[in-house]
Amino acid sequence: MEKSEIRQDKVTKQWVIYAPARRKRPSDFFGSSEPGPPLPARDETCPFCPGNERMLPSVLDEIKGGDSLVQVRVVPNKFPALTPDADSTRLYEGIYLKMQGYGNHEVVIETPRHDRQLGEMSVTEVETVIEAYHRRYMALMAKDGNMIAIIFRNYGLQAGTSLVHPHSQIIATGMVPVHIRWREEVAERYFDEFGRCVYCDILAYETGDGRRIVHENDSFVAFVPFAAEVPFEIRIMPKEHKADFGDITTSEKRDLASALRHVLARLRARLNDPDYNYVINTSARYRAREPQLHWYLQIRPRLMTMAGFEIGSGININPSVPEEDAAFLKEETL
Amino acid sequence: MEKSEIRQDKVTKQWVIYAPARRKRPSDFFGSSEPGPPLPARDETCPFCPGNERMLPSVLDEIKGGDSLVQVRVVPNKFPALTPDADSTRLYEGIYLKMQGYGNHEVVIETPRHDRQLGEMSVTEVETVIEAYHRRYMALMAKDGNMIAIIFRNYGLQAGTSLVHPHSQIIATGMVPVHIRWREEVAERYFDEFGRCVYCDILAYETGDGRRIVHENDSFVAFVPFAAEVPFEIRIMPKEHKADFGDITTSEKRDLASALRHVLARLRARLNDPDYNYVINTSARYRAREPQLHWYLQIRPRLMTMAGFEIGSGININPSVPEEDAAFLKEETL
Repeated sequence: MEKSEIRQDKVTKQWVIYAPARRKRPSDFFGSSEPGPPLPARDETCPFCPGNERMLPSVLDEIKGGDSLVQVRVVPNKFPALTPDADSTRLYEGIYLKMQGYGNHEVVIETPRHDRQLGEMSVTEVETVIEAYHRRYMALMAKDGNMIAIIFRNYGLQAGTSLVHPHSQIIATGMVPVHIRWREEVAERYFDEFGRCVYCDILAYETGDGRRIVHENDSFVAFVPFAAEVPFEIRIMPKEHKADFGDITTSEKRDLASALRHVLARLRARLNDPDYNYVINTSARYRAREPQLHWYLQIRPRLMTMAGFEIGSGININPSVPEEDAAFLKEETL
Repeated sequence: MEKSEIRQDKVTKQWVIYAPARRKRPSDFFGSSEPGPPLPARDETCPFCPGNERMLPSVLDEIKGGDSLVQVRVVPNKFPALTPDADSTRLYEGIYLKMQGYGNHEVVIETPRHDRQLGEMSVTEVETVIEAYHRRYMALMAKDGNMIAIIFRNYGLQAGTSLVHPHSQIIATGMVPVHIRWREEVAERYFDEFGRCVYCDILAYETGDGRRIVHENDSFVAFVPFAAEVPFEIRIMPKEHKADFGDITTSEKRDLASALRHVLARLRARLNDPDYNYVINTSARYRAREPQLHWYLQIRPRLMTMAGFEIGSGININPSVPEEDAAFLKEETL
């Protein structure tokens, strides 16, 4: 791509501007921070390190494996955005709608080791993290008040995390976000027109085209989307059509762990350990059986700053080209 | 507010979570960077400083006043995201839609002085900036290919700017962003139900309630929205119902300049010169005469980091409370 191009995301209908005139070399996207001193395996002041359980509100769930590195704990967030003792009844305040802060906000402590990153773990360790996601997801969605559960991971200061001990979070809410309703509506219109799941069509097209594929295994395809909003955005999508993350199978858990680990290791190796967020996009309650929806895991490295144009228009300016991003990530490091 | 509360934005239907458990004192939101050495009045290497015109591609427009400080220039962006020589015809690439990078991308150089910020300028200087916005807006919207023009300002590194010389930008595009279509649709539904502009109703309610008002003059009200997505978000809205920024009158330009200058000076004084973005939200082409739309200027200080939950759900977690933000901004500095 020499000149600017504008591409539309098939699922959100969002346009994205690709601006090679503003392009940097991939090396300019490298994690900007100088590597600090290596982290200790255990930090006396870290609430997520073994032996510091007194700093935690409680432990909601724990999964251990034969290997002492395999230990995942789920705890309530100590400073929760939402709490389950509140009421999700909508109330008027003057002309506006509001409700109490109902919801659940949990933390998944991925490993006993303070210094161990997902991309460096064994597949079994990552699989245990996925298993914990799934157990908490099922538990949270079994509560009548919850409409959706968002599983996400913030890695690094620029991605909004302050605690370095490897962890993810889950927030379940009593309302369906308009963002997600919108995605569902567009998929429904597509299904009504073509009689197929738009995500399945994208998977088939991307697998055939191949240029944006980063990794593939028996159950998952990892690719840079055609209309990636940020440099090196990646989606890891199950090959089998399923609206609901809750329906993930045992073998899919292992394959997701393997794909996730691989992709995170590639990002780390090729982009110098960039900050990133990932999030599992899944269906809202009552939509779990619908034929037009398809869950996936979305990774967004934090290499760019959103500015006024993005805030005003919702349109991202991406200096990086999806096909080239995928090729760069796949290239073997010397 | 003691416990979390969830509020809905009346215009976007977006829910926002207010989480006092995660609250910081306003002083924690202070611009984090230590003040560097004061900027020079002129920088030899700055393309926007007088005398360095050879570094600019060309000058599209210029407005000068009697005072030598009053000089606003509009130039093409040297690294444009979009260019007017491209074609906005939609094309298929496989199953996806794309088009060439059609559009306009201009820079408004607000002052000849390298070191002069909007909040420190005279009303006449800011008014001249608004006048330049208006002239370029009219010129850009007179081109058939342009569907909307986004006027925005990025202030500070965290807001996505690299050049410190005071400037704004205008991007006109050949497509209507889904974000803006969505806002228009919700406003239309409201109009169909109540027969009134939702923004006019919000203005009337906020003026009556008073708690979230930061500033008011003859033509404009500046307030923290009921469902502000970020701490100290401010909207400056014209009292007179108008869909299109292009319809701003001469006296409104002066009043907007006065309100904008006042609000930016308050942010600077109370929050230690925070980075921010502002953007003028106006109607898309062909919607300029509609009774349900209402333009406004939106300011977003960059005091928070968007993380995985926001990316996945579109829902912001705001630790700050709109009523308290407004009161804090209005308080006289000792």
